[in-house]
Amino acid sequence: MTFAEIGAFFEQHDNYTILTHKSPDGDTLGAGFGLWGYLTAMGKKANVLNGDGFPERYSFMYKGYAPEEFQEQCVIAVDIADPNLLGHSLAQYQQPGRIDLCIDHHISNKYYAKQSYVDGASSAACLILYQLFKELGRPISDQVALCLYTGIATDTGCFKYENTTPAAHIAAAELMQYDFPYAKINRLMFDIRSKGRLAAEHFVEANMEFFAGDKCAMIVLTTETMENCGIRQEEFDGLASIPLTMEGVELGITVKQRHENVYKLSVRTTERIDASAFCRQFGGGGHIRAAGCEITGTLEETRSRILAAVEALEL
Amino acid sequence: MTFAEIGAFFEQHDNYTILTHKSPDGDTLGAGFGLWGYLTAMGKKANVLNGDGFPERYSFMYKGYAPEEFQEQCVIAVDIADPNLLGHSLAQYQQPGRIDLCIDHHISNKYYAKQSYVDGASSAACLILYQLFKELGRPISDQVALCLYTGIATDTGCFKYENTTPAAHIAAAELMQYDFPYAKINRLMFDIRSKGRLAAEHFVEANMEFFAGDKCAMIVLTTETMENCGIRQEEFDGLASIPLTMEGVELGITVKQRHENVYKLSVRTTERIDASAFCRQFGGGGHIRAAGCEITGTLEETRSRILAAVEALEL
Repeated sequence: MTFAEIGAFFEQHDNYTILTHKSPDGDTLGAGFGLWGYLTAMGKKANVLNGDGFPERYSFMYKGYAPEEFQEQCVIAVDIADPNLLGHSLAQYQQPGRIDLCIDHHISNKYYAKQSYVDGASSAACLILYQLFKELGRPISDQVALCLYTGIATDTGCFKYENTTPAAHIAAAELMQYDFPYAKINRLMFDIRSKGRLAAEHFVEANMEFFAGDKCAMIVLTTETMENCGIRQEEFDGLASIPLTMEGVELGITVKQRHENVYKLSVRTTERIDASAFCRQFGGGGHIRAAGCEITGTLEETRSRILAAVEALEL
Repeated sequence: MTFAEIGAFFEQHDNYTILTHKSPDGDTLGAGFGLWGYLTAMGKKANVLNGDGFPERYSFMYKGYAPEEFQEQCVIAVDIADPNLLGHSLAQYQQPGRIDLCIDHHISNKYYAKQSYVDGASSAACLILYQLFKELGRPISDQVALCLYTGIATDTGCFKYENTTPAAHIAAAELMQYDFPYAKINRLMFDIRSKGRLAAEHFVEANMEFFAGDKCAMIVLTTETMENCGIRQEEFDGLASIPLTMEGVELGITVKQRHENVYKLSVRTTERIDASAFCRQFGGGGHIRAAGCEITGTLEETRSRILAAVEALEL
């Protein structure tokens, strides 16, 4: 699809459901609420859905949003590579043909929607939306600008990671002309830690394990550990970037128990390793430097499967 | 001075000494070595000096640099607000009339040089140099681009802080077209921690003190503490951003003993407090969100002077 075709699509339809991915991050929510603000400014009706609900820490993006009652006519997925990522409570949208349009930036996109706009080289789904909205020419609100900026900033680690493109910086320069507190948002997204969060960081950092001559660092969090260490469960969210901060580490793995015998892996890598390929071995995927997957088995089995895959890399 | 006048100045002079500030950071070194690369590409001779020497962690900026023997004709200071910041070993340049040109972005600049180009609204000295080089039209090398990018990235906290301007993002977008490993540099500058550094972070985080209803967080590091905790001294460098990462904190103060009865303060603030004004009370200065000063006195005296100043803010 071209941007002009997406523009025509927006004009022709109404009563939109916008889907965002489970374990929502700044990019899927920025794209969801940015698109919501854009469509409602066009006079359309739209709702944004998330299988896990909207986390409080992103509330600055969805303030003013309230779901509307209407007969859904059209479903758009943003930043969702695979319908699996919708989660159980949105399982009805996983059936073939349920999603009309997908806008995404994951190279691993499964092309499950009737129509797709996928740019695997784009830093963020929000960057695609910004370029789309700019080309379509309709003015965007400060709140839409805030959503898009947040998605670009969060998916690039505040313009730090390899996936940061010149286009991402140019979009940021242009979006900053709108009125929103970017420094405050960045502080909230990247810096601020509660005392509980600090305790969680210290806990996982103190228990980090090193393999492959210290080139691989791994954090393992079982439900039992998280429940017994006196730190609130949610303080253990989003710690996946920690292993790669250790000097010499090229592969950072964070393993978190989701259910009995189900472990979620978050993998982060330097330029030497393809995180997406690493996770594909276990049926997952994502980006070249940040990817994820789930392993089913006991903790012992999970560990040995991971360590075998690490060994096979010959770091 | 206009950029054209600085260009004429570069043409007219030779045998440059480029001065950078003590406790060097990415911006002063990026500007120093960026200017060195630019001037030597013009066929000029130049040396870069620093009162504390060039730290190993910035060696990617000065690889290929070796000081030359020549009769100094011209002295340029980059990113130096006050000749005090040259440090003891460059004290000969503190005398009036010794510095020909100053290029700086500190609002607190003392206009000590014969000619000055100061833009207090610029994100970094390296951003000023980038805009200067761009206007002058002479091509820059990948290595100069690397130096300038590093200075802009480090002084804005990788485009995170309030001092990040659209111009900083545009410069980054343009500089990224050159060939240098920006993601690797960002990882080195912002993320990577040795095991010793991690220990230092845990140490200061565990000993952080909170005042003014948790709106002020303070780290105090005496020589004795640093020597007795089993962590190498240099691991305690650059920890000044930590207090402000704590939820609710608006004023972060890091106090480090330099000599007997001499304490160096690094102050970081959110939008509610002027860090530069806070430090001016003690004869220091800097930027609105990041500033510094020295207090002479015993630890007790230093603490009570700081706490009185914190109390006066009525946070």
